[in-house]
Amino acid sequence: MSGTKKTGLILWLTLLLTGAYAEDGSRLWLRFSEAKVDKTLFSGIVSKTDALPAKEFGMAWNEMTGSELKRQAAPSSKSLIVGTVNDKHIKQTGIVSDLKNSGAEGYIIRSLKGDSVTVVAANTEAGLLYGVFHLLRLIQTEKFSYQLNIKEKPLYDVRLLNHWDNLDGTIERGYAGHSIWKWNELPGKISPRYEEYARANASVGINATVLNNVNASPQMLTKEYIQKVQAIANVLRPYHIRVFLSINFSSPKEIGGLPTSDPLDKNVKKWWSDKAKEIYKLIPDFGGFLVKANSEGLPGPMDYGRTHVDGANMLADALKPFGGIVMWRAFVYEPGDDRVKLAYNEFHKFDGMFRDNVIIQVKNGPIDFQPREPFSPLFGAMKKTPLMPELQITQEYLGQGTHLVFLAPMWQEFFEDDTFARGKGSFIAKVTTGNIYPQKFTAIAGVANIGEDANWCGHHFAQANWYAFGRLAWNNQISSEQIADEWITQTFQNKNKRPSDKNCWLPIKKMMLSSHETAVDYMMPLGLHHIFAWTHHYGPEPWCDIPGARPDWLPVYYHRADSVGLGYNRTTTGSNAVSQYYTPLNEEFNGLSSCPEKYLLWFHHVPWNYRMKSGRTLWDELCYRYDNGVQQVREYQKIWDKSENCIDAQRFAEVQSKLRTQSRDAVWWKDACLLYFQTFSKQPIPYNLERPVHELDDLKKIKLNMGHHN
Amino acid sequence: MSGTKKTGLILWLTLLLTGAYAEDGSRLWLRFSEAKVDKTLFSGIVSKTDALPAKEFGMAWNEMTGSELKRQAAPSSKSLIVGTVNDKHIKQTGIVSDLKNSGAEGYIIRSLKGDSVTVVAANTEAGLLYGVFHLLRLIQTEKFSYQLNIKEKPLYDVRLLNHWDNLDGTIERGYAGHSIWKWNELPGKISPRYEEYARANASVGINATVLNNVNASPQMLTKEYIQKVQAIANVLRPYHIRVFLSINFSSPKEIGGLPTSDPLDKNVKKWWSDKAKEIYKLIPDFGGFLVKANSEGLPGPMDYGRTHVDGANMLADALKPFGGIVMWRAFVYEPGDDRVKLAYNEFHKFDGMFRDNVIIQVKNGPIDFQPREPFSPLFGAMKKTPLMPELQITQEYLGQGTHLVFLAPMWQEFFEDDTFARGKGSFIAKVTTGNIYPQKFTAIAGVANIGEDANWCGHHFAQANWYAFGRLAWNNQISSEQIADEWITQTFQNKNKRPSDKNCWLPIKKMMLSSHETAVDYMMPLGLHHIFAWTHHYGPEPWCDIPGARPDWLPVYYHRADSVGLGYNRTTTGSNAVSQYYTPLNEEFNGLSSCPEKYLLWFHHVPWNYRMKSGRTLWDELCYRYDNGVQQVREYQKIWDKSENCIDAQRFAEVQSKLRTQSRDAVWWKDACLLYFQTFSKQPIPYNLERPVHELDDLKKIKLNMGHHN
Repeated sequence: MSGTKKTGLILWLTLLLTGAYAEDGSRLWLRFSEAKVDKTLFSGIVSKTDALPAKEFGMAWNEMTGSELKRQAAPSSKSLIVGTVNDKHIKQTGIVSDLKNSGAEGYIIRSLKGDSVTVVAANTEAGLLYGVFHLLRLIQTEKFSYQLNIKEKPLYDVRLLNHWDNLDGTIERGYAGHSIWKWNELPGKISPRYEEYARANASVGINATVLNNVNASPQMLTKEYIQKVQAIANVLRPYHIRVFLSINFSSPKEIGGLPTSDPLDKNVKKWWSDKAKEIYKLIPDFGGFLVKANSEGLPGPMDYGRTHVDGANMLADALKPFGGIVMWRAFVYEPGDDRVKLAYNEFHKFDGMFRDNVIIQVKNGPIDFQPREPFSPLFGAMKKTPLMPELQITQEYLGQGTHLVFLAPMWQEFFEDDTFARGKGSFIAKVTTGNIYPQKFTAIAGVANIGEDANWCGHHFAQANWYAFGRLAWNNQISSEQIADEWITQTFQNKNKRPSDKNCWLPIKKMMLSSHETAVDYMMPLGLHHIFAWTHHYGPEPWCDIPGARPDWLPVYYHRADSVGLGYNRTTTGSNAVSQYYTPLNEEFNGLSSCPEKYLLWFHHVPWNYRMKSGRTLWDELCYRYDNGVQQVREYQKIWDKSENCIDAQRFAEVQSKLRTQSRDAVWWKDACLLYFQTFSKQPIPYNLERPVHELDDLKKIKLNMGHHN
Repeated sequence: MSGTKKTGLILWLTLLLTGAYAEDGSRLWLRFSEAKVDKTLFSGIVSKTDALPAKEFGMAWNEMTGSELKRQAAPSSKSLIVGTVNDKHIKQTGIVSDLKNSGAEGYIIRSLKGDSVTVVAANTEAGLLYGVFHLLRLIQTEKFSYQLNIKEKPLYDVRLLNHWDNLDGTIERGYAGHSIWKWNELPGKISPRYEEYARANASVGINATVLNNVNASPQMLTKEYIQKVQAIANVLRPYHIRVFLSINFSSPKEIGGLPTSDPLDKNVKKWWSDKAKEIYKLIPDFGGFLVKANSEGLPGPMDYGRTHVDGANMLADALKPFGGIVMWRAFVYEPGDDRVKLAYNEFHKFDGMFRDNVIIQVKNGPIDFQPREPFSPLFGAMKKTPLMPELQITQEYLGQGTHLVFLAPMWQEFFEDDTFARGKGSFIAKVTTGNIYPQKFTAIAGVANIGEDANWCGHHFAQANWYAFGRLAWNNQISSEQIADEWITQTFQNKNKRPSDKNCWLPIKKMMLSSHETAVDYMMPLGLHHIFAWTHHYGPEPWCDIPGARPDWLPVYYHRADSVGLGYNRTTTGSNAVSQYYTPLNEEFNGLSSCPEKYLLWFHHVPWNYRMKSGRTLWDELCYRYDNGVQQVREYQKIWDKSENCIDAQRFAEVQSKLRTQSRDAVWWKDACLLYFQTFSKQPIPYNLERPVHELDDLKKIKLNMGHHN
């Protein structure tokens, strides 16, 4: 070794040991090396890597969980036994019968024989993978004990990310750099990020991924690209992650040389069957197709006078022999009636008509991932058709790569909503897991916020949303608080700041838990929605009204401000969208005083001087909400700055900088919306509130040069 | 009259009567028509316009005060007698002997014969002019009574504006549009603004004006331009305003065809004598010359090995036969020693060597119109040489045309400073009015903030600084509060909001009176100075350090921030600038604990952890001051917005808009200075303070495209 090389190695080792290397966030929450592990936690580990045959655990266990475990668990007076029901050590524990209803992905972590033995057991390697990650999480968050009795299995069968990644490397609604999928390098070159990605997803229970944008290129299904997909699938497989693809409904015509893509056309059917066969030959565990059809200009069965049912079933038939499924998106809204009603109107009528390997993918709200929406009335409405929620992890409408907004509370709110589909208690959490109407299989999708940025998600705190999606997809009953706790301590702990250091983590948790409500306040309180700038969905543009544009793409369509008041009348005297909900919810939403104020302007056109529950008029309340949003972000800045000695320098500075921008943006939002709505209300902003610092005319001139893509 | 014309006229009259015409601020504080005048205030007016011969009052009285009076005073049971001591009605009142020491500009306003007669009397028409304006002000501000006993005369002989207006119409440090002097139209065309300008000045006692920039073009003294000046002088004369000119010391060489401008050269002397004769032939009451020589690259006597005395005396000799004076500026600072010492060092030695028609014009502080400076030590130092203060009305360093900063409190602070020149009580107010050392004549200059903008000054509240300068030049003992009271009520009163409506005016007055301290807080608290952006002096640039630039033009020269602390050591251990002040002031400034904290960083390099009188460290105190500045501007926004029903719509909106910008600018200043100084202090901003919303690196990139000129 040359002198230079030796010096370099020593420097590198020194940096590693002192923790002084750049903390760029690339390790996500997977910082076992930062965990304080008692060197005598286990005296011995009985697992494949110790005593079990390699074939029983396979590469995943060997390469990942095994090595993870070895990294932190040194010999002690206690022993750890890890294995599946087929393993003799597990059989000897007598735990096998308890795993009967744990399915393919469940596991048990249990202390036996007093506290001398800890067992992680599962029916399959997949279950074991999740069980070991659970154990690791307990150790990392310093919640491990020798008195464990944990039994888990996931509530959704398919827990998948949707990447809106294009084949040219751009990402629609991506705010963390370009795509991690390097299509031009594949299949020859395999980025090390693919496995890191798989490991991170597996650690939170995600078991599927759609690699490409729902606005899909037909090219995706060419032989060339399927080979590239195969290469990715091979990397993800050991982590029990199945690959799916978004397909373009016109593929038979575009790349198949057929004159049509009519789903009832014999040749079209054959083309899809052959294509399925071709895929499964290379990727035997291929998951299936995600389809955006007849939506926002994309092709679909209606181009041929057919229905969504015709299209979905045709694809389902092609996939059926191989066990694949079709996820057909309900995000359709032909111009016409009130946009919030359209998906329901289009799909409700098809209930029971889809093949049993079709599932309808429905966005949480009836519009499009707004800061706050009531749930889509399709949930609970389709009794004989499986539905899967589509959540958006990427913050298209929530400050993108810049604002700190923790989404778990928003999703929790969604899961806790009661559809009343089969009376009180018919929560979304139950409806979507087949507990109200039985479903042959269940699924949940999250639109990914992942890109090639060093920290994966652009904003360090956006990692928490990826983490939260995975945890909630596993179990939609986990509280936002628990998720925040887990993520913060795993992500930010270091040798000096332990998970038990509440002074460090409590304020940050408080900030995260209130951050969604804060963003709603400074962007769109009281049920306002879709008043974003035309192109980028980042800043405010409530005045946006482009002649000739689709009305339902324009803010003025949604807020309906006039001299009388504000909001969209969707009651029985208006568009009657309330009628799509079950009783008594439809009545609750329909009544001005019974409607929850968080949805007030979603369902009602409310007079400016309407008296709110606070005692304030609508106008004054609106002002207070916007102001509160601003003050809250300033409070977050204080919380974060006070955390300086808890956080490594790089991540501290990067988050601090983004919070500064968020703080300015909150004022921008407040001023833009209040000054604009004031032109209708003709009322002063309450004088005890901080005054605007912008001119409406100046704000109207702001045109950010932000594309949809990164 | 056609129908259209008739409709137009009726509309115009309606607008006039209802007051619904655009309120653009062009009428300044001269809004007699808004005053509530009792129709029976006076039963008759005995004045030139009633009973006195025209020649005795002249055009001014006839055109202006007479007509003003007539406009508001209708017949009543009381009478008003207006006249000079030469007038028989005045002689009859027996008031003449009381005017003996009233000089050429003093006056008496007195109630006689119980309350039946009100007399305004003066020795001259000029005095009468000021007396009548005083009476009008009393009526306007609703302070008139029949029990008056007022005797006034000005404290300074020459009360003049300095226009830094260039011949091409631009204005150096002008923020209200281009120059009102239309040189290209003169002398043929006389703008109506010239007379409006004269009237406004006369109303506050200003009796002189320098028409052109101290960075003077030689062209000013060409025959062509002297004829233009004559035309302006003719308009100003009836208002008793004398015209002065800034001259370029190289004029003999530049426009006279001489090979030199050496002040001891015979031909140069003759050239100036001839030029004086030429000027006085056209403008018999011409005031004299203002000279910036050997300063910032301008020519001067030192170019020929002569002194400032040689130069000034040569010009003085030329003007002497015609009664003209030379105002020679002490604003010189050749690179070398601590800049604050240079003017003193250069001029102190010449005490007693100037002709008796020379006066040295000295800026209030030793640097250059900073938000706050200690007074220039030249005041009180020259016992045998008259000195005149130069104040800056235009807000070069105080937010220019955008920030609301009322300057009277800053000037009041200056006048109240004690030089200790002849022991305790040797206030600047006394020193500069010849009450400490006798002066043959006294003068005071204000750099004008006037331009062709409709409202004259750019910012409506900048009018108050023009007004305040005039009032303080008349009497430097008038309180800022009284000036604000007078200005607000005259400027903003209307038919519905009377001067007595304290709810309207008190908050505005409070805002004005604290506004200078507020600007100091958010720009340069605790004695910081000259940390402005290199070119425009508007925004912050404390980091500015341009290689090769004159050190004393750079912020780093002034703030001297380092790891130890902040500020310029001008004590006996530093540049010893303190020694230029009299005892005990030099000792007070020299002591770290005795130095007033408002000047602390002017005189001391103070450790970051130095304990301030508040108990805070220097760093924390600095943070609190900047923050306080921001919070105060936000408070002004509230005050102003609450005043909406007191102020006409146009001026309300225009001021509101500027306050919004000021509010953003205050945050900009705070963030820029604190984030920059923090790189030296290495300490956190106290966590209870609002956090920065900018990144230092971003702020460093701001390059405003603002010239010195408008």
